Amino acid sequence: MLRSLTHVGQDPVRGGYSRPVYSTAELDLRSWFREQAQRRGLDVETDRNGIIWAWWGPQQDGALVTGSHLDSVPGGGAYDGPLGVASALAAVDLLKARGIKPARSLAITVFPEEEGSRFGVACLGSRLLTGSIDADRALRLRDSDGDTFADVARSNGLDPRHVGPDPDALARIGDFVELHVEQGIGLGANGPGIAVGNSVLGHGRWKLSIYGQGNHAGTTLMSDRADPMVAAAQIIMAVRHAAARQPDARATVGRMIPVPGGTNVIASRVDMWVDARHPNDAVTAHLVEEIHGRAQRVAAEEGCTVKLTEESYSNTVHFDASLTGRIGAMLPDAPMLATGAGHDAGVLAGFVPSAMLFVRNPSGISHSPEEHVTDADADAGATALANVLAGLL
Amino acid sequence: MLRSLTHVGQDPVRGGYSRPVYSTAELDLRSWFREQAQRRGLDVETDRNGIIWAWWGPQQDGALVTGSHLDSVPGGGAYDGPLGVASALAAVDLLKARGIKPARSLAITVFPEEEGSRFGVACLGSRLLTGSIDADRALRLRDSDGDTFADVARSNGLDPRHVGPDPDALARIGDFVELHVEQGIGLGANGPGIAVGNSVLGHGRWKLSIYGQGNHAGTTLMSDRADPMVAAAQIIMAVRHAAARQPDARATVGRMIPVPGGTNVIASRVDMWVDARHPNDAVTAHLVEEIHGRAQRVAAEEGCTVKLTEESYSNTVHFDASLTGRIGAMLPDAPMLATGAGHDAGVLAGFVPSAMLFVRNPSGISHSPEEHVTDADADAGATALANVLAGLL
Repeated sequence: MLRSLTHVGQDPVRGGYSRPVYSTAELDLRSWFREQAQRRGLDVETDRNGIIWAWWGPQQDGALVTGSHLDSVPGGGAYDGPLGVASALAAVDLLKARGIKPARSLAITVFPEEEGSRFGVACLGSRLLTGSIDADRALRLRDSDGDTFADVARSNGLDPRHVGPDPDALARIGDFVELHVEQGIGLGANGPGIAVGNSVLGHGRWKLSIYGQGNHAGTTLMSDRADPMVAAAQIIMAVRHAAARQPDARATVGRMIPVPGGTNVIASRVDMWVDARHPNDAVTAHLVEEIHGRAQRVAAEEGCTVKLTEESYSNTVHFDASLTGRIGAMLPDAPMLATGAGHDAGVLAGFVPSAMLFVRNPSGISHSPEEHVTDADADAGATALANVLAGLL
Repeated sequence: MLRSLTHVGQDPVRGGYSRPVYSTAELDLRSWFREQAQRRGLDVETDRNGIIWAWWGPQQDGALVTGSHLDSVPGGGAYDGPLGVASALAAVDLLKARGIKPARSLAITVFPEEEGSRFGVACLGSRLLTGSIDADRALRLRDSDGDTFADVARSNGLDPRHVGPDPDALARIGDFVELHVEQGIGLGANGPGIAVGNSVLGHGRWKLSIYGQGNHAGTTLMSDRADPMVAAAQIIMAVRHAAARQPDARATVGRMIPVPGGTNVIASRVDMWVDARHPNDAVTAHLVEEIHGRAQRVAAEEGCTVKLTEESYSNTVHFDASLTGRIGAMLPDAPMLATGAGHDAGVLAGFVPSAMLFVRNPSGISHSPEEHVTDADADAGATALANVLAGLL
């Protein structure tokens, strides 16, 4: 199934795939999913937050739900998201081939904007569904073209007045299981190819804007400058040093936009984003405080000012112990694994019993064209998911 | 005249104006210029490099030529370029009002891509005209959408086979005078509003690409990273320190693009541009060598590699002493001023007698929405240009 999608959303500049939510590429994948689901006799609907549901059996409360997302980071790999969706379809095929008649309904879901690569907030679909983000704030989010989420939602058939918490839809999820490509090297080359997720590292995104004095790069003496790039450079180093000193912390600046961004122009402003994570939420907060303090000092030394905004934060999540235990018993060879990546299952875990399966990624490299899953591991993943769903139905 | 252009190419995100060459905004300004020239009875033609010529008198060798450019840096001011073009039109009005019958023809020129903000090479039009850039290299330059200069030139009516050195057009320039907004604070608040340019600081642009390992920001341990942003940050600081240590040097990183540029993604590559300038060309070369050496060391420490490419370089230019002396005699109150900014007049100076006039910019801020010229100084500039042209005709 994934091989039939290799032409969708290839990024000729970055390599890999760029499939931001509601782009042509992501819409093509959504159409592909609808068609695949219908071909299997599933009833497909899209809810008021843009989440697609494909039902095997009648729409009902307390169903067993599995799924993932189809959007990608810019220049991402082929598996992050689509593997979970395709494996869910394959698992339904396996269950049907086994002649299983589900005792409760099963639904496959596709969540929009899991990566947050268009509107800046990861897991936007599951956050809206569960009320984990204020709907008005979400509707005001803008993409890099300046379009609001409200406008983009509207032009994709949603009614912005109805975007937000959806208790009826949430009640339909009795248990949620998300299969996902592993994003580290927790599964070695010689062991089993499947793991059961037990926790998601707390993680957040902060935007730092540094304001300086835009000017001409040729005529402005070095001593007369208030150059926000010089402050931003020191902030990148502060982020690295703060995270390196703190065991188990990760902090990254992967996105940075100097404004106006001309070669012969001293920037007037730099926008940069910090992604920070630690198992202990208090430590993450302290890390960000430390970075903010250092940013204010280096900005002041350069004659600049700095503004910090929290764009999103998710506490460390421990998946439902009972559900995870039952799944572990069904997959006795699979180790338990924590993940540093965020997932819709992590958001849903605050509301309904949720769990995850991870499929081996030999290099551990993810959010990159080099992300990889072997065919054998992908097959083993779909089979494991089918076994888990059969056990939970 | 400039007030009638305030609606063209406003940049709602950066502020000021974004009028890259052959964008809708720059094309609108070119149309405006043609109409203004025709309204004054000037004969307008566009040469094979896209330079517009408006002739007062027959097209002839050894004419007196004045002009500037209409393109801007991203988020630039209203005066950098358009002031010289509008002042040339106003000067023709003044000369006609005085009943002057030119002894030789006068032409007003508009040069494309002076800023290099679309294809990366500043003064591209005058470099092509004079053969200061290889035409094949120019045709292969790409803008940020990946379009080549050849394609963009073709869709703007040029024949790529004829882009390049144009000795016939060059022979038409007997003397060249460019009026431009001052881009520093060389003209104080209480002194004269006009200066005569005597030199252009040597300046160049170098692209640095830093290659690392793209990966997931949440799952990759700090100790496992080869993050090109961390190397780039140290290179920005190296640029600042190298320039600050060297008297009269200026060096700037105003443009930087992390690839893929996702918040939750460790970049796989960072492209950054260094603008470096010094009156002594050997010192500039040494400065860039020092930055390159430091870049290689910090990249290696991070497990990254670095590639340096010179995109353009212009030696320090001293304007024609005889022409500058004659102009100085016509404007006895105007001081002589060096400029740190590049100009088409600086490129042409290697081939034909060239000179510049600068008009006061109270704050000295340029390449920024805050660039400013008072109406009184703009009028004084047009009058001074008219006087100089009258004296040289």
